[in-house]
Amino acid sequence: MVNNIAIIGVGAAGATAALQARKFNREVAITIFNTEPYSQYSRCGLPYTISGKVREFDDLVLMPPSNWDSVKIDAKLNTTVTEIDHKNRTLKYNGAEEGELKYDALIFATGARNANPPIKDLDKERVYGLRTLDDAKVLAKEAENAKKAVIIGGGLVGMEAAEAFYERGLDVTVVEFLPHCLLAMVDPDMAKIVEDHCREHGLKILTNTAAQEITGDKTPKAVIVKNRENEEVTEIPADFVVVATGVRAITDLADYIGVEIGPSHGIKTDERMMTNLENVYACGDCAENVEFITRKPMAGGLGTIAVRQARVAGINAAGGEATFPGIVGAKVTKLFDMEIASTGFTADMAKRFEIPVVKGSIKGSTKPPYYVGGKDIKVKTYYNKETGKLVGGQLVGLEDAAMRLNVLTIGIQHGIDAAALFDFENCYAPAICDTWDPLVTSADAARRRLKM
Amino acid sequence: MVNNIAIIGVGAAGATAALQARKFNREVAITIFNTEPYSQYSRCGLPYTISGKVREFDDLVLMPPSNWDSVKIDAKLNTTVTEIDHKNRTLKYNGAEEGELKYDALIFATGARNANPPIKDLDKERVYGLRTLDDAKVLAKEAENAKKAVIIGGGLVGMEAAEAFYERGLDVTVVEFLPHCLLAMVDPDMAKIVEDHCREHGLKILTNTAAQEITGDKTPKAVIVKNRENEEVTEIPADFVVVATGVRAITDLADYIGVEIGPSHGIKTDERMMTNLENVYACGDCAENVEFITRKPMAGGLGTIAVRQARVAGINAAGGEATFPGIVGAKVTKLFDMEIASTGFTADMAKRFEIPVVKGSIKGSTKPPYYVGGKDIKVKTYYNKETGKLVGGQLVGLEDAAMRLNVLTIGIQHGIDAAALFDFENCYAPAICDTWDPLVTSADAARRRLKM
Repeated sequence: MVNNIAIIGVGAAGATAALQARKFNREVAITIFNTEPYSQYSRCGLPYTISGKVREFDDLVLMPPSNWDSVKIDAKLNTTVTEIDHKNRTLKYNGAEEGELKYDALIFATGARNANPPIKDLDKERVYGLRTLDDAKVLAKEAENAKKAVIIGGGLVGMEAAEAFYERGLDVTVVEFLPHCLLAMVDPDMAKIVEDHCREHGLKILTNTAAQEITGDKTPKAVIVKNRENEEVTEIPADFVVVATGVRAITDLADYIGVEIGPSHGIKTDERMMTNLENVYACGDCAENVEFITRKPMAGGLGTIAVRQARVAGINAAGGEATFPGIVGAKVTKLFDMEIASTGFTADMAKRFEIPVVKGSIKGSTKPPYYVGGKDIKVKTYYNKETGKLVGGQLVGLEDAAMRLNVLTIGIQHGIDAAALFDFENCYAPAICDTWDPLVTSADAARRRLKM
Repeated sequence: MVNNIAIIGVGAAGATAALQARKFNREVAITIFNTEPYSQYSRCGLPYTISGKVREFDDLVLMPPSNWDSVKIDAKLNTTVTEIDHKNRTLKYNGAEEGELKYDALIFATGARNANPPIKDLDKERVYGLRTLDDAKVLAKEAENAKKAVIIGGGLVGMEAAEAFYERGLDVTVVEFLPHCLLAMVDPDMAKIVEDHCREHGLKILTNTAAQEITGDKTPKAVIVKNRENEEVTEIPADFVVVATGVRAITDLADYIGVEIGPSHGIKTDERMMTNLENVYACGDCAENVEFITRKPMAGGLGTIAVRQARVAGINAAGGEATFPGIVGAKVTKLFDMEIASTGFTADMAKRFEIPVVKGSIKGSTKPPYYVGGKDIKVKTYYNKETGKLVGGQLVGLEDAAMRLNVLTIGIQHGIDAAALFDFENCYAPAICDTWDPLVTSADAARRRLKM
């Protein structure tokens, strides 16, 4: 029987795990630890504190520290777990509070840290990550005074930050090492549409470009970059620099007590979100689970995944029985009013996961041609060449791309094939969508190729 | 072997059937007949020619008459099929062209006509339906000069027409016999939200009110209505009247040759869209097929259903093999920027189809609370009390209601239950949607009730 649950980390995962454990079990003692002085806040909302689409930093705080008392959860903020003696089910903590705690169940919700790229002089002042509320606070101040920003990394966080600074009137350059931005999310041709759109709106984007060095004394003067194709080296003036080149799961403590770390560098978990150690769980950005289609190991790194895994971990730690179905990996964002949406495999991911695919690719419109105001939308759907089953999809357009993506994700979760997506009875009204939704048209193209 | 296909009716159904038959079979002779002088146009787009959201009447014409030649389809417009001798597989036609035609396969795509309600003096001038392009042309002219419009019937067409006239500056009153508008689509509480919204925007709506008589000499002066609750009789001044109280399948010719008419008043069809007579098909508003969940008879009456049934009928008539999966009945519209969306069963329909249901009902927001600009959205989902399976859903909100509906429709088509919808990995980004989509939250509420 579980009497004491300890949760390390109070991000979306840790906080959700704690609340779900409490919801399931009114008696169990729950203690949560956070190195940061804050409790749960929305990490994904951070870029929008810069642009003002999130008005106050406090708005991001989803669970004010004072609220934990009311659900009888002992929140130790500004406090770091420094040592775990798992044999004796005891941990030590330090910081605002100091002491030792006995636990029966332990949940790692330690999140991830920025993976710093091999760039010279990264340790200057005014070189930031965008991972914490404190990061965002400093960056919001930079947006007030600085003129030139360089963002290293054109992934989701990098692009969202770039848009935010641009909207605040800064001159912004994104430096992306790979041939295109957002390649963890979309195929190159889709990424190209997004880049063109962002450039039209005024963003400078250098792709296939390596950031090599940050010049300046204490603070940045410029970023030296090298075009990876023609090897041309240029200097991009910068008042400050944001490094957003991806993250790495924080697994030190888990590793130390013998928790197995998986090939994705996250803590390996089963469908109950339990690690190889009985009653030790992991969830959120520090955890690894299975990719939904192939059941191969995959890190989540998404807020949706974090809260869903955390719910399962929290309930199980509290003595319940819940399972996590695996990670499809639906990802969306909006940049200068363009929605970019992706789920399941991109072409590149399908290759890496060794799934041969057939594609349905179409350019359509969000509304019927006769109705004023429809927007272009590009849709790509991927199907397993052997089974015809939907394994991924991407949409880019000025409206209704993200919501359309949801149909594909639930389709993947329920194993639909190209014929079934073609049979989808989409909603239709002139002001909303045409009789054959672009999703259905893309399935039709693939269905023919698959001879279904 | 089929050498000659005759198709009666060139609306969305007839035109789609013809084109799909041709696509499948390059050799077969195809003749299509339309009593109207036009060929395929979007009937659902008609209200928007009044408001100007469809710019030109011609924009609605999806298949200009001159295009039929290029696909070797003989289009006889302004021509009515007057007689069928099915024993000898011959039909006679009259109008712009006159003659006799031999057929091997026959497709009824005769559509529906307005069902005139029992109102006195409905046959006045300036009392219109809104069913044909000619209706729309006349009504667009009324919008230019008239001041007061009364719309009898607060269903989809009535409400869309009312919005259109209101946007053109007219004083508009909707008279609805039932306690609420749109009850064929949503529950009363959802209808109430829509009515309140439309009233706030300036529309006058009288519910639970019977239109009794249209006064005036040749043209309307007023509509006499009676409140069905307090029996109060009032007179609503009207320059013209639109009657939109539903439609009835046109089945006279089919009936005449012995085609079976179903309990929904539509032509009864199997999954190949074939009637009880070999090689005689029906599709679109004149046809009856099965409701998806219960497999009980149901009329379609929707553009999406019409084109999907027509595709199946066209391919089968041309010698192919296609099946129609049944009617879920996804319906959407937009009134004064509010999206109203419904799929599967409403509470009332579930009762009529004898499905005991459990409800998940929530008021949520389209975006996370911390992000500026999210809109209220109300979501209701219904589940079979015995199996837990999703059987219907409704959404009302100022954005993303219709696109969210699509998830429910494909969910119904693939038999998902409340637990599966709760496990749905919706997309998440601050600018798009919160980590737990309102759909998922509604499933959670039902899941608990269902003890899943």
